Amino acid sequence: MQLRNIKLVIEYDGTRYNGWQSQKNGRGIQEMITNALHQVTGEEIKLNGSGRTDAGVHAYGQTANFLTDSKIPTEKIPLAVNSFLPKDIVIKSACEVSEDFHARYSVHGKKYMYIVNNSNIRSALDFYREYQFGEKLDYKSMKKAAEYFEGTHDFRAFMASGSKVKDTVRTIHKVQLKKREDDRIIFNFTGEGFLYNMVRIMVGTLLDVGTGKKKPEDVKNIILSKDRTQAGKTVPAQGLYLMEVYYE
Amino acid sequence: MQLRNIKLVIEYDGTRYNGWQSQKNGRGIQEMITNALHQVTGEEIKLNGSGRTDAGVHAYGQTANFLTDSKIPTEKIPLAVNSFLPKDIVIKSACEVSEDFHARYSVHGKKYMYIVNNSNIRSALDFYREYQFGEKLDYKSMKKAAEYFEGTHDFRAFMASGSKVKDTVRTIHKVQLKKREDDRIIFNFTGEGFLYNMVRIMVGTLLDVGTGKKKPEDVKNIILSKDRTQAGKTVPAQGLYLMEVYYE
Repeated sequence: MQLRNIKLVIEYDGTRYNGWQSQKNGRGIQEMITNALHQVTGEEIKLNGSGRTDAGVHAYGQTANFLTDSKIPTEKIPLAVNSFLPKDIVIKSACEVSEDFHARYSVHGKKYMYIVNNSNIRSALDFYREYQFGEKLDYKSMKKAAEYFEGTHDFRAFMASGSKVKDTVRTIHKVQLKKREDDRIIFNFTGEGFLYNMVRIMVGTLLDVGTGKKKPEDVKNIILSKDRTQAGKTVPAQGLYLMEVYYE
Repeated sequence: MQLRNIKLVIEYDGTRYNGWQSQKNGRGIQEMITNALHQVTGEEIKLNGSGRTDAGVHAYGQTANFLTDSKIPTEKIPLAVNSFLPKDIVIKSACEVSEDFHARYSVHGKKYMYIVNNSNIRSALDFYREYQFGEKLDYKSMKKAAEYFEGTHDFRAFMASGSKVKDTVRTIHKVQLKKREDDRIIFNFTGEGFLYNMVRIMVGTLLDVGTGKKKPEDVKNIILSKDRTQAGKTVPAQGLYLMEVYYE
């Protein structure tokens, strides 16, 4: 018998979780959803996420898929599953996809957002949703520096030093910066794929440009150096959001 | 010796608290700040808030004042006090004010915001910061209805039924509605003063207009009726924000 393949779009506040994947210490978001799907379907569900997110990272558009033999209509899955989920995780939509769809292997691109609160004082309402960084920033220089990330490059210098990935060439389609009136700077990154901690290291490097520690043109040479120590620091997880995962 | 009178501007996420004022069951925000001020000054501090906020209500601009004999420079108060506060409460600024300033008695006006998430599915990131209300809304009718609130009226119909306030005449300067692309409707209310639950009952009444239960013109008659049962329901606290308190 043919199982249905269901794709989910998921929003979560990562603050209380140990990341997407279940960990020895603490709860994983994947585990919470797998359990809720079990409650609804009565089946042992294998949930494939589009990729992991670290502890504290948020998502407006994480994706996952699973196979099911259950009779529940696809459009009723979100409401049914959400009733078994905590308030900080929600299934936004569910749709049936072809049998060869895999939330990770079929990915064509991803979009991430990073929020910097460029004020001297932390926010009470957004503390766990942004990185408060009070130093004066040259916004124009940061915008200029961001352009060097666009295109296909070897991003080894922007990968967490512990990562064992061999092929470090990635294509970044677009890096956009927006300045909001409330002192927030919003960074948007769209690309085919990202290395481990890559977005957070790119933001850390752009902040070094903003403070004048680095020049916009330096970004070009940092990429060419393939040396992690040349790039900026890894900014905190809590400012990062997985916005969208693209498929064909 | 002359004590200094210090005015504070305070932001908080009300989710974890039993409102501004200390309660028998659960923590009050006022108590948290009073304790932090005690840590910094070594004094027993009497903190006057601009007014209470209910459990779950948030603030970007609550105000309070206190008298102190401490030598700490005024501009250093926020950073010092914030180090003794949890992450969901923050002193945004402190300034010295004249001895006759009182955060409650000197108030000239207040601004509140209310956020309605007009989508069928709850948000994981904003669940405790908005009211999710999925019914289809006629935005134009709501905007029209909102105008009837502006001006000086007896708002008895828009006061929580248990309240013992006698003088129920209030002046509302402005009611503004904004529709955001992400299905949120933002309500802004500016006025000289508000009765207990008044903003939440006005929003509940505007939602009745939006769904077609009431007509925009009905708002006029509801005000005239002075009858709480004629107005809409009291929408949840978690969508309400105290934005600003005005003084002369």
